[in-house]
Amino acid sequence: MAVLAIDLGGTRLALALFDGGGDLILKQTVFLQQRRGTEVGDLIRQQTARLLHEAGRRQLPVHGIGVSVPGIYRAQTGSVWAPNIPGWADYPLLHELNAISGGEVPVHMDSDGACCIIAEARRGAARGCRNAVFLAVGTGIGAGIMVDGQVLRGAGGSAGAVGWLALDRPFDDRYSRCGCFEYYASGDGIARLTSECLAAEAGYSGVLASTFEGAEDVFAARAAGDALAERILRQCTEFWGMAAANLVSLFNPEKIIFGGGVFGPALGLLGDIYSEARKWAQPIGIGEVRFEGSALGADAALFGAAYLALHARSLED
Amino acid sequence: MAVLAIDLGGTRLALALFDGGGDLILKQTVFLQQRRGTEVGDLIRQQTARLLHEAGRRQLPVHGIGVSVPGIYRAQTGSVWAPNIPGWADYPLLHELNAISGGEVPVHMDSDGACCIIAEARRGAARGCRNAVFLAVGTGIGAGIMVDGQVLRGAGGSAGAVGWLALDRPFDDRYSRCGCFEYYASGDGIARLTSECLAAEAGYSGVLASTFEGAEDVFAARAAGDALAERILRQCTEFWGMAAANLVSLFNPEKIIFGGGVFGPALGLLGDIYSEARKWAQPIGIGEVRFEGSALGADAALFGAAYLALHARSLED
Repeated sequence: MAVLAIDLGGTRLALALFDGGGDLILKQTVFLQQRRGTEVGDLIRQQTARLLHEAGRRQLPVHGIGVSVPGIYRAQTGSVWAPNIPGWADYPLLHELNAISGGEVPVHMDSDGACCIIAEARRGAARGCRNAVFLAVGTGIGAGIMVDGQVLRGAGGSAGAVGWLALDRPFDDRYSRCGCFEYYASGDGIARLTSECLAAEAGYSGVLASTFEGAEDVFAARAAGDALAERILRQCTEFWGMAAANLVSLFNPEKIIFGGGVFGPALGLLGDIYSEARKWAQPIGIGEVRFEGSALGADAALFGAAYLALHARSLED
Repeated sequence: MAVLAIDLGGTRLALALFDGGGDLILKQTVFLQQRRGTEVGDLIRQQTARLLHEAGRRQLPVHGIGVSVPGIYRAQTGSVWAPNIPGWADYPLLHELNAISGGEVPVHMDSDGACCIIAEARRGAARGCRNAVFLAVGTGIGAGIMVDGQVLRGAGGSAGAVGWLALDRPFDDRYSRCGCFEYYASGDGIARLTSECLAAEAGYSGVLASTFEGAEDVFAARAAGDALAERILRQCTEFWGMAAANLVSLFNPEKIIFGGGVFGPALGLLGDIYSEARKWAQPIGIGEVRFEGSALGADAALFGAAYLALHARSLED
């Protein structure tokens, strides 16, 4: 048997076939480009149908479809709230995916944060943990939180919205769109802050003046000794440390797992992030936690989606 | 049948007898005064023995003892970490209480935060909720957090340490002892800030110059139109709003219940606290939460201790 896993991101769509043991057989990725609303739904259905066909050609019967969505999945209505996809305030994705197989292949869906912590708990850095947090820092910031072996969902499914953490008073209207923590310490935040600094500091003649295109260039510049990059990433380290401290004080987890595109290159700062967190956090809790990088990297949500299809949202077999 | 409930605080000890339906029969309170270490343990045993004797006199067989402790209860060892009681870094309270009845009356123990949310869920403001937070603001700041019907405990029992929330960068060494949020927005924090302002502002001639003894006087001065009191409590409102926003973004609860000695008089600020929180919090979550005062007031932890004895830490019957 096999399952089909779908990881919908804000900019790209990954699909994969997994075998019954949760091992990856085949993966493909397409970019959303300027698609919006039903165009994104069309792309998902198209790619799903193509992969189901490919599975058939390989004589791999697909027993379930698992989907990771970049936002909130509303199980009651089968709809998705995805703030970074235009027209996806309440998108009927479950209905559209059910239509492909005439309802014959069960579809399971969850938020990307939930998928990532499920995947890390099953075969990644959170194996053996009952309490752990996956902190995903990419274009935006999100989290998947495991409490006593279960994914934290909250009353309406929006729990774990860590990008909205209030960390820097007073309130500034610029936090309204994405939250204070995400504003400063996401990939987008790093890129925006760098642009602002380059525009404001006319005397700057370092490597970023010629190389800067996005957050990854700031990490490269820091590695090359650039002082502006050092300053920008020191501020991010402060925010990452404060947010991690708050997760420690509130959840007393065994691990915080840093993932997403920024961790990645920011993994070299994990020691500094822990030092910052240690200053702020509840002192017993900070002694009981370990900070680690994701074991599954960019595929964490995809693996999680596969486990949804294999085990229907549970962390237990 | 009856149960005996004990609420140990940082400054006082309350004991009560409850009937099998969780109704209060009899309550007594003593102050710890300058007691420390085993002196506090002696006081608890003395008062417990006295109340057990009184129950016997009234022909009320005591079927269990429930204890709320101001810190962390370590179930594995039966010991208590209570930072505000000198000598209680790892106090063997379970052993001492078991000794009173020769182990014949079962003793159940939990943190004050857990006791408060258990009590509110059973007969207070969180009745019917599956996800709710009790935010206790008194001398210090703590919380009891209910996630999907269960009390959140974390890996080592220190979850819910909300007083340690990082809310105001950069880090200041003054946060080291109690946490950033507690430093600014606890009863102690309000009193300290007021003292500092009175010492620094030689020109101040308002009502606090003559009346100030503690946080409650600041609320009275604000009600009388005092500008300094207004300024101090406006800053606290900002911190309470930020912390509540963080609880909303992370837990997506149905209710946040404000209790402890400060709520109390700060309940009049609940609308302002919600307005502040609305600016910061995840926008869907903040629309799904209600902010309310504790329905059980100063007795919340005591009622929770009674429920521990009646139902052994569960929120279900």
